[in-house]
Amino acid sequence: MSYNLLKGKRGIIFGALDENSIAWKTAERVHEEGGEFVLTNAPIAMRMGQIKQLAEKTGSEIIPADATNLEELENLVAKAQEILGGKLDFVLHSIGMSVNVRKGKHYTDSNYDWTHKGWDVSAVSFHKTMSVLYKQDAMNEWGSIVALTYMAAQRVFPDYNDMADNKAYLESIARSFGYFFGRDKKVRVNTISQSPTPTTAGQGVKGFDGFISYADKMSPLGNATAEDCAAYTVSLFSDLTKRVTLQNLYNDGGFSNMGVSDAVMDAFTKE
Amino acid sequence: MSYNLLKGKRGIIFGALDENSIAWKTAERVHEEGGEFVLTNAPIAMRMGQIKQLAEKTGSEIIPADATNLEELENLVAKAQEILGGKLDFVLHSIGMSVNVRKGKHYTDSNYDWTHKGWDVSAVSFHKTMSVLYKQDAMNEWGSIVALTYMAAQRVFPDYNDMADNKAYLESIARSFGYFFGRDKKVRVNTISQSPTPTTAGQGVKGFDGFISYADKMSPLGNATAEDCAAYTVSLFSDLTKRVTLQNLYNDGGFSNMGVSDAVMDAFTKE
Amino acid sequence: MSYNLLKGKRGIIFGALDENSIAWKTAERVHEEGGEFVLTNAPIAMRMGQIKQLAEKTGSEIIPADATNLEELENLVAKAQEILGGKLDFVLHSIGMSVNVRKGKHYTDSNYDWTHKGWDVSAVSFHKTMSVLYKQDAMNEWGSIVALTYMAAQRVFPDYNDMADNKAYLESIARSFGYFFGRDKKVRVNTISQSPTPTTAGQGVKGFDGFISYADKMSPLGNATAEDCAAYTVSLFSDLTKRVTLQNLYNDGGFSNMGVSDAVMDAFTKE
Amino acid sequence: MSYNLLKGKRGIIFGALDENSIAWKTAERVHEEGGEFVLTNAPIAMRMGQIKQLAEKTGSEIIPADATNLEELENLVAKAQEILGGKLDFVLHSIGMSVNVRKGKHYTDSNYDWTHKGWDVSAVSFHKTMSVLYKQDAMNEWGSIVALTYMAAQRVFPDYNDMADNKAYLESIARSFGYFFGRDKKVRVNTISQSPTPTTAGQGVKGFDGFISYADKMSPLGNATAEDCAAYTVSLFSDLTKRVTLQNLYNDGGFSNMGVSDAVMDAFTKE
Repeated sequence: MSYNLLKGKRGIIFGALDENSIAWKTAERVHEEGGEFVLTNAPIAMRMGQIKQLAEKTGSEIIPADATNLEELENLVAKAQEILGGKLDFVLHSIGMSVNVRKGKHYTDSNYDWTHKGWDVSAVSFHKTMSVLYKQDAMNEWGSIVALTYMAAQRVFPDYNDMADNKAYLESIARSFGYFFGRDKKVRVNTISQSPTPTTAGQGVKGFDGFISYADKMSPLGNATAEDCAAYTVSLFSDLTKRVTLQNLYNDGGFSNMGVSDAVMDAFTKE
Repeated sequence: MSYNLLKGKRGIIFGALDENSIAWKTAERVHEEGGEFVLTNAPIAMRMGQIKQLAEKTGSEIIPADATNLEELENLVAKAQEILGGKLDFVLHSIGMSVNVRKGKHYTDSNYDWTHKGWDVSAVSFHKTMSVLYKQDAMNEWGSIVALTYMAAQRVFPDYNDMADNKAYLESIARSFGYFFGRDKKVRVNTISQSPTPTTAGQGVKGFDGFISYADKMSPLGNATAEDCAAYTVSLFSDLTKRVTLQNLYNDGGFSNMGVSDAVMDAFTKE
Repeated sequence: MSYNLLKGKRGIIFGALDENSIAWKTAERVHEEGGEFVLTNAPIAMRMGQIKQLAEKTGSEIIPADATNLEELENLVAKAQEILGGKLDFVLHSIGMSVNVRKGKHYTDSNYDWTHKGWDVSAVSFHKTMSVLYKQDAMNEWGSIVALTYMAAQRVFPDYNDMADNKAYLESIARSFGYFFGRDKKVRVNTISQSPTPTTAGQGVKGFDGFISYADKMSPLGNATAEDCAAYTVSLFSDLTKRVTLQNLYNDGGFSNMGVSDAVMDAFTKE
Repeated sequence: MSYNLLKGKRGIIFGALDENSIAWKTAERVHEEGGEFVLTNAPIAMRMGQIKQLAEKTGSEIIPADATNLEELENLVAKAQEILGGKLDFVLHSIGMSVNVRKGKHYTDSNYDWTHKGWDVSAVSFHKTMSVLYKQDAMNEWGSIVALTYMAAQRVFPDYNDMADNKAYLESIARSFGYFFGRDKKVRVNTISQSPTPTTAGQGVKGFDGFISYADKMSPLGNATAEDCAAYTVSLFSDLTKRVTLQNLYNDGGFSNMGVSDAVMDAFTKE
């Protein structure tokens, strides 16, 4: 179902790797809603992914960019405006990576070079992206910037490792930069805190399947899917939410406000 | 601009008094988006208001109901389904009233009969409404229930009096009942925490104009208007937000996450 | 171990029923720390309880008072000052009761007279108590008022029923009244949000034992006991925390900031 | 006034620079309460500061350590146990520094090398400290670790720059590491979120005096002082708070839960 919610709007979508990606689903949905955009990802991610299919399907161009590299971001933002024919209305940041997680390094025994790398890729990249957008005055008034995050920024999920801290930093950037973007450019900045989602990236986390089942049983409406997140993101890119800013918005079937559910207690007491 | 976001959806809208009401603006916007609904308000409010104009404009019927009275709510929900030809997809609760505020009774010197009355009208009415909807099995799956609230539920606004406590209770009902409505009926329940809005009701609060100006200067995007709230409510009634539930969602230009703004500091230090 | 933390301080302790009560443990601990106080409870609770033993043990007098009755509260506060020889330094509100819970009435099917009764006893009693203290100017500067609450005010615990909403209202009163008490009298007002505790009252809640075990496994330091709560309350009554006010303070072994623990995931996946 | 609350307890205090430092006041107060400790600071800070006076006054030894350097931290923790004659009971982390702030670089125009430096010093140093404590098994059961933070981690204070993001990361570390420290060692980890305090470090922030006055007027009990923070920290190091963990605790005269105060509205409307 399409409503033409994003007709005439232009943007950039970071982080589509393959069809399990939330960014991929979002790109598809944004396209259905009439939005036009440039796709971007790190050169290395692009080699592994099928982003070209997505580009064809959505009539989009791809501009590779390492989101930790200011020059590449400057090139991306400049080119995107050129290609799309004007300033931008929306940006999706869906980038996250922890070397400590990938290499199975325990949180109490972090490799701090890896901690630094993960922080730079997962969190500072959002600051750099907004800084380039701000300096190039690349966003239209009432534009919307969204980054994806996870509730580990607020509460402990033991296997989430340093990604918890990275997401806390990311959400803080959303508020800190969101203030200046709102005040100076009338642009809103929010984060969506999504249910655990079986993306290719998410699957790297230890015990992820059990955890997905747990989260699903805890949530009165069950886990939000990648498609749900795409739809929610569209609502945040649309004109329906013009004065919503600096918020961290849970798209999680209610998990975030549950203390315990009957379904979890049942499983727990059966033990 | 209309997107047909609510085409084929049916609902009930509580609390439209006059054209300053958020519920009034929401009814207009829901109508534009293709939703059909029944309007309701307390008999006494209806006499004072211009709700008939709104009904004509939106092709809606009016069913008076005192939202503190279970029988009248039962009648309302039953009749609404009859008139609209099926189960409901959305409900807006926009009801609030404090006798202590109206009569200028200070919070430290409450009249507890008035406290009781305000609690019953402003908060318990939401429980009663959901209880009737739940027992009549009146909501379609993936339906959406929204109540309007204010940030005084989280933080102190000295003149907000016992409405702060009523809103805290209301938001708790949204979570508590939202769990059962999600688990059993796949219906979502959320509250929107709106900027101070110059409705006819809001204007009763002491020093309201100064406060509106303060909130506006504190918020990087300025205060959200009644129209903004109507649009946000539409997004929550639509299929774009199917797994968002138990949330309290700020529609406030960023106020809720501000510590202080440059504009407020400027006014403050100029003093 | 005693530190004389409350030497020379006077107060009132509400809600000691029997030796499982948090208020009972707190009274014992306050006594050890040199504080003097009056004990109070509802006449009906006093008949059922062993409060006289506690009074003897701590050298305290008992003044019965129905905390929903302003006159009885006025008598209590006046007499307490007379007996103790001066204004008060601390007050503990540990009162909660839901008729819906006691009679097994499901939350979706509340009896609203019972809802009203529970709200009046569990929440409004705190407002009435502070109102009397405020009007009689009964608190010394830098005095401390504490009410006990539970995290159901923030998150859903399905069996907690309308006590969740009552606790949300109670916590809001703490903020709302705490502002005026701070501004006008330099008195702090806080709530302690305690782990589920096997008091005589708590045991009335359905499935409470299983839930206590769940909470214990979720909390990195295990559930806080009644003794832990007594000690924490002493710290809030003492001069160590003079500028802590309007806060809701979790004494829960870390539960409130857990998403999931390894111990809970183990039990869950073993299922 | 001393209560011997920390008699027999040993610890490390980071970050005492001069007598305006919160860490300085805390060291004095911990000493009064019978605690023994080692003082530490970065070599460069020590040259500028008067830490030797503090050491003499409190009978403490000083072990210089760069808190971003694992080897120096390992040396510190090992030596501290040697000097104090056993495992540790408390640790205070009071370290923060932003090069962007110092050099007047605007948040929207960050120098990312400076951002990295500030993050490493202000936030990662806390992880490194806990990692060394954890690996050396240097904490006694029921020990307590506290880090100082600021509410800019939750809400926007425009001049706080990247320290806001650093504090968000620091608070996340407290939760993430606190889980493992609680589960494995029965040690609690909390942060204190303090009122703006006129320390030598704080005074570097632009418009700090005006802001301190604003915060004071917003807070019903006024700003918490460094002495208040020292006392609160003592309560968290003591056995009064054994099951309080993973918390971010506001010591701020109530600021954090204020929407607006009468005093601020008065100043604002007089403008």
